Amino acid sequence: MIKNITGRIDLIESLRGKKATFLLSLSNTKTATIEGITQAGIPGMIHLTPTLDSEFVCTGEVRSLPNIAQTPKGVPTPALISRAVHLLDPFSRIELLNLGLEVTPSIEYFKQHDFNINPSGSIDVGANIDAFELFQKGVEFGQTYEPKSDYVILGESVPSGTTTALATALALGYDAKDKFSSSFAANPSNIKQEVVTKALKQISPNDDIFEILGKVSDNMLIFNAGFILGANNKDYRIILAGGTQMACVLLIINSILQTMQGAIDHSKIALVTTKWVYEDKNSDIKALLEMLDFELNSYYADFDFALSNHPALKLYDQGEAKEGVGAGGCLAYGFLKGLSKEQITKKVEEFLQ
Amino acid sequence: MIKNITGRIDLIESLRGKKATFLLSLSNTKTATIEGITQAGIPGMIHLTPTLDSEFVCTGEVRSLPNIAQTPKGVPTPALISRAVHLLDPFSRIELLNLGLEVTPSIEYFKQHDFNINPSGSIDVGANIDAFELFQKGVEFGQTYEPKSDYVILGESVPSGTTTALATALALGYDAKDKFSSSFAANPSNIKQEVVTKALKQISPNDDIFEILGKVSDNMLIFNAGFILGANNKDYRIILAGGTQMACVLLIINSILQTMQGAIDHSKIALVTTKWVYEDKNSDIKALLEMLDFELNSYYADFDFALSNHPALKLYDQGEAKEGVGAGGCLAYGFLKGLSKEQITKKVEEFLQ
Repeated sequence: MIKNITGRIDLIESLRGKKATFLLSLSNTKTATIEGITQAGIPGMIHLTPTLDSEFVCTGEVRSLPNIAQTPKGVPTPALISRAVHLLDPFSRIELLNLGLEVTPSIEYFKQHDFNINPSGSIDVGANIDAFELFQKGVEFGQTYEPKSDYVILGESVPSGTTTALATALALGYDAKDKFSSSFAANPSNIKQEVVTKALKQISPNDDIFEILGKVSDNMLIFNAGFILGANNKDYRIILAGGTQMACVLLIINSILQTMQGAIDHSKIALVTTKWVYEDKNSDIKALLEMLDFELNSYYADFDFALSNHPALKLYDQGEAKEGVGAGGCLAYGFLKGLSKEQITKKVEEFLQ
Repeated sequence: MIKNITGRIDLIESLRGKKATFLLSLSNTKTATIEGITQAGIPGMIHLTPTLDSEFVCTGEVRSLPNIAQTPKGVPTPALISRAVHLLDPFSRIELLNLGLEVTPSIEYFKQHDFNINPSGSIDVGANIDAFELFQKGVEFGQTYEPKSDYVILGESVPSGTTTALATALALGYDAKDKFSSSFAANPSNIKQEVVTKALKQISPNDDIFEILGKVSDNMLIFNAGFILGANNKDYRIILAGGTQMACVLLIINSILQTMQGAIDHSKIALVTTKWVYEDKNSDIKALLEMLDFELNSYYADFDFALSNHPALKLYDQGEAKEGVGAGGCLAYGFLKGLSKEQITKKVEEFLQ
């Protein structure tokens, strides 16, 4: 039920049945305000998506919508999948990483890590991030954080995050063209390409890696690169639960290691995504992961909505949405705890009744 | 599957998947010997109910019946529900609080906390409790007890405990009339009212709060008020698993805080009861909880025996028994661990075959 992208099955099998903390990293980039660049959310309220996603995963309720009648239409958020797994076999705990949100989630009793980070700018005019400081915040968090469980599932909700990830990978010199995913089945390549082209024009030949990241990246990518490096000598493993955005986190780490001539203990990390990302014809996560100088065990959860007749869920099997809110990693966690495709499908369907 | 009575869902959601210690507080009051006041047990052997309940929850066996052939008839004890949850997804541990039992449970290897407390008297002639000393025992227990798990579920088994709770709330000046539950579907108001009236006549105008409690209350109510206040600065949460009796524990705390001009950290406690109590037409737990001067998160487990055809269980859906032995809190724990209504129903039915 969990299949390899790169490496062998052993790392993820060694986590079978173990307890995980779900860390959900949340951020807004103004890039998402560009018309037509993402469908991750409610038109006109895309900036609320990470806030609403985290509220739903933690409480089952969507709280920060100004008008409650205005519920999401179209493709349902992958948060449904993460929540379904949590209901069927709960994570040890869910904690939120506020990496620059427009609206703080309306949640009590769940740990919300606040790093005093602002939403980042739109990359077509420069993201305007102090990338070194942000990276250091990630490193420090990794050095001090103790999950009190066997491993960490690190998910994200960052609308238009695949656009910033694509710009980042290209800016760092990776052959990333046509390899990044999108929340659309038909990747809106023109708009995306225009934005990325504008972003890359911000870069000066003398910019160092953090100057580059500060212009074309987003908070989630930079912070998590630091987090993973900071936690690399800890005794727990981190599952990067995401698609090409999490692949980009690894590419950033790769570039930083090249610059600093450092090394990473690859046994402490893995990437897990969805089948929808793995099979996507318009992107190529495997090619991205094979650009890393270090070995990596990466996987996809062999889950789709073949057992469902719900039209909104069928959109996933047609390539919409694909991944986000740690969906692939959460599915893998569920499988490792003995949950079946039937159980998960049924639980997701309950949310849509 | 868990719904709000007061407050928001966050506190209980933050405990999803976490491990709990089930603390079962057990006590006898001679009030239960008044004919027709309770159906919580075997006629003529009502005093054995807390002993048998704890034996069954811990071991699956009922041991302290003088004649084993004489098994319970009529409405089965809610201990079946607590035991079913424990079998499906066990508590970290079960520990007993002996708050004055006629017969000590015949159980080895489970921790039985003994506080050298005698059964209390019948409130129609004065319960004759040294309430301040008992309260202090509770406070000391709260200050020293370490559950070694994420949270505590505090249940109770005290036959005729709703009568002592009603008398207590009225004696403390709360508008509690018609708001207290009963083990009967048709609340035996006449007998109960007579007993409560007699109890209230014991009180002198100059009695302080502990003198009042010593006359009209029961050991469970007084001890647990102390326990909860004593543990209030600990890093674990306590779920008061019960209906109107546990609401009365909170009313006692409220009155003590008024007297002492103290405060409670409401984030450390919550109350969880059954749907049968929440929907009971003859009582009003919500109204009782809204009399508190402090905020409280309270919930009910959305569970009934709609999936069962067993006539003894159907009595619950007709309003008999309703709650006890931590049933509501145990059901919530089960739901938070991913158990389904189907699983719990089936497991309870197995006991009755």
